[in-house]
Amino acid sequence: MSRERLSARAYVDGVLAGDRAVLARAITLVESERAGDADLAAEVLDAVVPHAGRSMRVGITGVPGAGKSTLIDALGMHLVRDHGERVAVLSVDPSSPISGGSILGDKTRMERLSLEQGAYIRPSPSRGMLGGVARHTRETILLCEAAGYRTVLVETVGVGQSETAVEAMTDCFLLVMLPGAGDLLQGIKRGIIEMVDAIVINKADGDMQARAREAQAEYTAALHLFPARGDGWQPPVLTCSAIEGHGVPAIRETITAYRDHRQAGGHFARRRREQALAWMRELVSAGLASLLRTDPAVEAMLPDLEAAVSDGRTTPVAAARRVLASFTRAPQ
Amino acid sequence: MSRERLSARAYVDGVLAGDRAVLARAITLVESERAGDADLAAEVLDAVVPHAGRSMRVGITGVPGAGKSTLIDALGMHLVRDHGERVAVLSVDPSSPISGGSILGDKTRMERLSLEQGAYIRPSPSRGMLGGVARHTRETILLCEAAGYRTVLVETVGVGQSETAVEAMTDCFLLVMLPGAGDLLQGIKRGIIEMVDAIVINKADGDMQARAREAQAEYTAALHLFPARGDGWQPPVLTCSAIEGHGVPAIRETITAYRDHRQAGGHFARRRREQALAWMRELVSAGLASLLRTDPAVEAMLPDLEAAVSDGRTTPVAAARRVLASFTRAPQ
Repeated sequence: MSRERLSARAYVDGVLAGDRAVLARAITLVESERAGDADLAAEVLDAVVPHAGRSMRVGITGVPGAGKSTLIDALGMHLVRDHGERVAVLSVDPSSPISGGSILGDKTRMERLSLEQGAYIRPSPSRGMLGGVARHTRETILLCEAAGYRTVLVETVGVGQSETAVEAMTDCFLLVMLPGAGDLLQGIKRGIIEMVDAIVINKADGDMQARAREAQAEYTAALHLFPARGDGWQPPVLTCSAIEGHGVPAIRETITAYRDHRQAGGHFARRRREQALAWMRELVSAGLASLLRTDPAVEAMLPDLEAAVSDGRTTPVAAARRVLASFTRAPQ
Repeated sequence: MSRERLSARAYVDGVLAGDRAVLARAITLVESERAGDADLAAEVLDAVVPHAGRSMRVGITGVPGAGKSTLIDALGMHLVRDHGERVAVLSVDPSSPISGGSILGDKTRMERLSLEQGAYIRPSPSRGMLGGVARHTRETILLCEAAGYRTVLVETVGVGQSETAVEAMTDCFLLVMLPGAGDLLQGIKRGIIEMVDAIVINKADGDMQARAREAQAEYTAALHLFPARGDGWQPPVLTCSAIEGHGVPAIRETITAYRDHRQAGGHFARRRREQALAWMRELVSAGLASLLRTDPAVEAMLPDLEAAVSDGRTTPVAAARRVLASFTRAPQ
């Protein structure tokens, strides 16, 4: 960003007024790694947080080629056009690992939604990536909420490490699959199935409709093999065609039904609180780790110690004690 | 322990000579929370570690009532009597949460094995418990290995948080189930199935043999729904009767086949190295967290900050920054 930073007041007022340009600059501020920006970003976030939180945060994952972007485009259009909702999409453009957020790429991928005034599409910069999600996506969610977006869709890039991170920051987690029986859960990382609140079989169009229904039956049976969830929700399996548009309203209805179910059981608010506390602890822990890592004495000893532990020449117990002793002796 | 501590040399020599009384005292030393014991414990561990590592570490979990103790008794007897192996069993007695390790309780539960010279049974003290496993089980494994035990069986208590901890310290993970179809994975925590290297259906005796075979077929089918493992191992489903003794040799054969498979692919040694480094990082991170927690300034501010984050009055970002700022300002 070549433009000057705004004052905290100007960021906050602009975001709360739903000013898209200020929102974009506020997100850039929280994503900034420049020294000094962190204080201003924290001030802005603290001022907007009482106005945040009133959205449904939906994580969306799926194998490459499952049509996540097209599905988000279709779901977003349905929410904006048929329900008058404002929708924010936080997505990662896997095709541009270098550009640091190719807005053009995302706008092309969601060609209808990107033209809607009720939608705000924000690609994540690749540099701040942490396992497939931008490091500052959580802050970005808060800013979008404060700007009045009532649904926030967070798209993960491919299937990998990112699902756990996205699950930790969303209320509802959708898995997008393709029709096609056989290798039922192939390509889906272990543990993902147990996180999902609904499975959507996309591309159930033309010749694929029968196969999509078969896959729906198989996934439904497979999901019943898992133990009952603590909240009593049985994740449904839906079929849709993002391109033809059918099945899309049912996705919105499922998300709404899930939210109502979780709110009725008190799970919704509890999970939000737990997520906030876990996020705080994670930041503290990351901050401590960074203090340790940049400690000159620790930095000097760590490679040899790790090699010794790896080769079995010393125990992790003794190595950890040496690291900690060196850290606490060092001048802070 | 009312007896005096030994010198580091005496602990090390005794353990390496396979002296059971010294081994027991060395384990008590590493489990000690007394200030000053930690230095001696680290010295002893560092001296024995070149002699440790040459065992197969087997984690055993299962629903309460699945007969884990009886199975360990039978498997241990088979290893000791039929193969001349020395076996260490690290177990937790769930019936005595207060006594701090009721040796009698465990000896009663494994009544044949406890009389064998080739077996060493060590209950974990309940006080040092961390999610169902003793906090010092990893050190205890090293001591047992240095004392010449070639198989270490680590029993988890019930099914809960402990499986992840046990998986992180063992080479092979067995799940003990009961015959009985229907509620297939009922009672098994989400994610456990994906950790297991073999399932053993116990109590396949008398009238239950047919049901056990049915369950075997169902579990086998269910396991095929999971994606292929990186190491190419397909977890088998065995049936056995620990009481009647049949099926027990096949468990040993499976463990051996698994070890050979992992060693051939290089996975065995790699996982050991990763486990050691992860353990070191975990200890460093726990040590840092403890430094932070006992910091008077942090201690004073934390309850209010956590309440503010939980209520949404402040962001986790701002709260974490305040904690870290307070910690680094404080005199160390």
